[in-house]
Amino acid sequence: MTAQPPFERLPPGDDLGLGLRSGGRRWMNPDGSINVRRAGLPWFRPYELYHRLITMGGARFLALLLLGYLLANLLFAGVYLAVGMEHFLRPGGSGFADRFLDAFFFSAQTLTTVGYGHISPQSHLASAVAALESLLGLLSFALATGLLYGRFSRPHAQIRFSSHAVVAPYRGGTGFMFRFVNKRSNQLIEVEAAVVLSRLDPQTGARRFHTLALERNRINLFPANWTVVHPIDDASPLAGLDAAALRQINPEFIVLVKAFDDTFSQTIYQRTSYTAEDVVWGASFAPMTRTAADGALELEIGLVDGLILPG
Amino acid sequence: MTAQPPFERLPPGDDLGLGLRSGGRRWMNPDGSINVRRAGLPWFRPYELYHRLITMGGARFLALLLLGYLLANLLFAGVYLAVGMEHFLRPGGSGFADRFLDAFFFSAQTLTTVGYGHISPQSHLASAVAALESLLGLLSFALATGLLYGRFSRPHAQIRFSSHAVVAPYRGGTGFMFRFVNKRSNQLIEVEAAVVLSRLDPQTGARRFHTLALERNRINLFPANWTVVHPIDDASPLAGLDAAALRQINPEFIVLVKAFDDTFSQTIYQRTSYTAEDVVWGASFAPMTRTAADGALELEIGLVDGLILPG
Amino acid sequence: MTAQPPFERLPPGDDLGLGLRSGGRRWMNPDGSINVRRAGLPWFRPYELYHRLITMGGARFLALLLLGYLLANLLFAGVYLAVGMEHFLRPGGSGFADRFLDAFFFSAQTLTTVGYGHISPQSHLASAVAALESLLGLLSFALATGLLYGRFSRPHAQIRFSSHAVVAPYRGGTGFMFRFVNKRSNQLIEVEAAVVLSRLDPQTGARRFHTLALERNRINLFPANWTVVHPIDDASPLAGLDAAALRQINPEFIVLVKAFDDTFSQTIYQRTSYTAEDVVWGASFAPMTRTAADGALELEIGLVDGLILPG
Amino acid sequence: MTAQPPFERLPPGDDLGLGLRSGGRRWMNPDGSINVRRAGLPWFRPYELYHRLITMGGARFLALLLLGYLLANLLFAGVYLAVGMEHFLRPGGSGFADRFLDAFFFSAQTLTTVGYGHISPQSHLASAVAALESLLGLLSFALATGLLYGRFSRPHAQIRFSSHAVVAPYRGGTGFMFRFVNKRSNQLIEVEAAVVLSRLDPQTGARRFHTLALERNRINLFPANWTVVHPIDDASPLAGLDAAALRQINPEFIVLVKAFDDTFSQTIYQRTSYTAEDVVWGASFAPMTRTAADGALELEIGLVDGLILPG
Repeated sequence: MTAQPPFERLPPGDDLGLGLRSGGRRWMNPDGSINVRRAGLPWFRPYELYHRLITMGGARFLALLLLGYLLANLLFAGVYLAVGMEHFLRPGGSGFADRFLDAFFFSAQTLTTVGYGHISPQSHLASAVAALESLLGLLSFALATGLLYGRFSRPHAQIRFSSHAVVAPYRGGTGFMFRFVNKRSNQLIEVEAAVVLSRLDPQTGARRFHTLALERNRINLFPANWTVVHPIDDASPLAGLDAAALRQINPEFIVLVKAFDDTFSQTIYQRTSYTAEDVVWGASFAPMTRTAADGALELEIGLVDGLILPG
Repeated sequence: MTAQPPFERLPPGDDLGLGLRSGGRRWMNPDGSINVRRAGLPWFRPYELYHRLITMGGARFLALLLLGYLLANLLFAGVYLAVGMEHFLRPGGSGFADRFLDAFFFSAQTLTTVGYGHISPQSHLASAVAALESLLGLLSFALATGLLYGRFSRPHAQIRFSSHAVVAPYRGGTGFMFRFVNKRSNQLIEVEAAVVLSRLDPQTGARRFHTLALERNRINLFPANWTVVHPIDDASPLAGLDAAALRQINPEFIVLVKAFDDTFSQTIYQRTSYTAEDVVWGASFAPMTRTAADGALELEIGLVDGLILPG
Repeated sequence: MTAQPPFERLPPGDDLGLGLRSGGRRWMNPDGSINVRRAGLPWFRPYELYHRLITMGGARFLALLLLGYLLANLLFAGVYLAVGMEHFLRPGGSGFADRFLDAFFFSAQTLTTVGYGHISPQSHLASAVAALESLLGLLSFALATGLLYGRFSRPHAQIRFSSHAVVAPYRGGTGFMFRFVNKRSNQLIEVEAAVVLSRLDPQTGARRFHTLALERNRINLFPANWTVVHPIDDASPLAGLDAAALRQINPEFIVLVKAFDDTFSQTIYQRTSYTAEDVVWGASFAPMTRTAADGALELEIGLVDGLILPG
Repeated sequence: MTAQPPFERLPPGDDLGLGLRSGGRRWMNPDGSINVRRAGLPWFRPYELYHRLITMGGARFLALLLLGYLLANLLFAGVYLAVGMEHFLRPGGSGFADRFLDAFFFSAQTLTTVGYGHISPQSHLASAVAALESLLGLLSFALATGLLYGRFSRPHAQIRFSSHAVVAPYRGGTGFMFRFVNKRSNQLIEVEAAVVLSRLDPQTGARRFHTLALERNRINLFPANWTVVHPIDDASPLAGLDAAALRQINPEFIVLVKAFDDTFSQTIYQRTSYTAEDVVWGASFAPMTRTAADGALELEIGLVDGLILPG
């Protein structure tokens, strides 16, 4: 790049694109989602639909598939009834229920291309609809194949953050700390953390942002939990603040974590944020690891929130 | 690398590979495509065909699938007719229409492997053609599966640039500005922007290139719109130019944006360019965000082009 | 980032997240897995199941597929028997064996959607179960498709480390060395190595960590084997140690290798570790390359462990 | 990393892992493959098989698919004949040809799961074999689906290097130059080039390596061809050499190119090498671009080898 212009240039880390924030509400939610609503998006957004389908719970996904299968068959059953079941070779009786169910199951046999043949189209019209349905069936299952693969191969969140941060003694001084753990058993590599404090400026009433210096911002392997520490020294924007003073500046600690999942060879990002309410003063984190009976080291995931309260 | 040779070495950013540009026409189009036509490419380019198939509109893609299905069945119907429908067990009559339609629908039932069996090959010759068709059918649907998956999992453009750039007051000085917004609701991370000015050198009549210094060239999160600012200071190649003088140098502002889409764990690149005609002097960008009735922050995508004109 | 805080900040490489280590046992196994057991994980972990399925041996994977196919058919055969085989058009006799096998094979013909039709559901109840099974069948094979693709396209270990490290004369001084080879014939690019020594501090009894300086920590191409060398100079934590003294500090040499596999366009990571027992003093590595009869250079993968013992 | 050890550390670029080279033969071939043969690999290497299947020509791949289909059906036809065709309901006569062909086509109808049913297994034994075959069929087509997708989505070479390098006047001095072009119409971004010279040291008879300083080693966009220039200044290992002297040192210019293909969001690498025989002295490269009749800029791929010979 060319020589620096005579304008202030914030260190990259300092701009999280948080120029805006409405009222008192937090800017980022604990789950990492951001409180900015998008308006004017087209109502049909295939990529987001795809994303929702590969991220939704497995049970819900399966239910959707079943529902889709049911609806498609109902739809085509209707069409076949409209065409008239006399266009079909079929075993069933002539009552509506029989006609409907034969139509429905013929549709199912066509959509899945199982095509036993004991029910089969006799007229060209019926054949034409069936030809269309079998095509649709194959495409739907092609789509389902992609979705199922996408569900497993996509990068997926696997970090669990402690629900609270603490301000506690640290190496003679004090530190702002939180921790997180890999809640899955595959390894994360080259884990990086960054913390940005968004605070109210009492004078101007405007928000200011500070990247908090961390005792360490990167680890190569992440076998257990990592407690991220911001040492509160004189250089820290938290210097000299107590619980009350911290609430005063209505802070939001925005946490960004980046890691490489070598199981899927993908870079994953996760975010969270802590507000004054999420900070426990004087507490420290309870150990998450123990030596098991067989001498092996054991990490108890559920203890990530464990705090040892003062006094 | 070894010691610098005593040759001028342009900063990487300064070479966009735009050594060439024909006449007055712009080098890059607003959509980021480049006005260089390739000659001597082989007429059949599978990768580009694949690329076109996964990038074309959904409706067009579906239409193509249907057409392909229709043509394949017409083709095989022709073959079956040539073989002779007397080689088949079939319900239909002996007229041509009947024979043709039976052939057509038998083909459809074979291609999709639904195979009801009420029409089925009786001779070995007919069976041989059908065996080939069913193989072709499975391969086609294997291909379709890949295409459908490719369509959703591919990296896809999601940035919308403002149609115009502005030159407007900025922090006491003046700035060249444009903005862009993520037109989808998933998050982009680590967004980087670079702007290169390609201009005519009045003396030599040759083109010269300048990387424009930006007030900021990277943001970590991109929840709303980002207005990229090149402060026009004394170091800027735009220093002292007015609208007329700018047109004189026939400029092209080439914009490169790089971002990481953590939904798909992919790096995406987008480009655009602005010419003198695209620059509005003295205008400023209208805000795109508002606080909704429920107090939530709302971003109106459609307003990205919104300008507040001077006077 | 902001100015350094007045706290010690370890160089990133120095923290491998090995704060913990239980008793005398090694922290990382030769295969790169880490001796930390996770507790409190949910019993059903789809991603890990997926991962196990795409990483397990091919034979075992195939066996699992066959078993799953068998079980699914047994299950549905049971359902069809419960429904009653009189609901089916079928060739077989009325004995249990016949009824069961007809049910079993009808299930197979439905699950795979081959649906010959010589056995077919006559009642709506039977049709309903069959409709469900054919759906299940298609989804299972969609899953299998994803798994098979995942098995081949996933990043996969291809580096083989020497089983032993050596301490041997090197360029007038002494060096700690080990080597590794790409056990596949596709190229690895931009291969990087890092070695961290975890040792016991005799005074404090605590563990200390040192990133070992390497004669070279990166190569662009990796056509043959790479012998990684840590020169034992005065700056080295191994300075002045002999075999006995090394055992004293109960060392663990943790090796991290990163490479880019341009066949699959993926970054791969591999790890291993050596303990005092794995170090052979005074030995040197036997050459792995020879010039074949036809003058071509030949690399014998199996020789990676080859040592030339002293004396 | 820790403080530098008092050992020489080559700049990364200088080690391409070319420690070895047999006799006079070139180390890298023009297509980028390396002249090191691997011995002791297992005879069955699924990943390489997969890689060969996704990289082989389309025609060959299709032929292989057809062959596999034919063989699978022949195999199963044999099994069905062994079982005995009297176990099947079938239209054909009792001669061997009829029995064989019915078996063959029944196999095809089962493998593709088309299952018309006019030929169908009557005995449980026949049904058992058919159940196995239909499973095998579905798995094979699952595999084919993955292969077809892999063939299109894999990173693929798209750079074509000039067959010759030239040494020619350059900016008052002399330069070693070669060029390359993107032979596809999709854009490559952030293209980087590195050139390492491997030469014979007349004194020691050993090989030495030099990273050649380039006038430019990176371009952001790559719309046309890029001529890479190593200015031969006093710092250059080529300083003062003429054609004869160059042949003397038996040089190999190893070229590494790295680029990002934003169509597939993948980093691609390509390599080539030039020997003394590939260097044309005093020649210059013929232009590859022209302004077409309609004023558009046109790039003629085929001209990448075009030289303007001296005199």
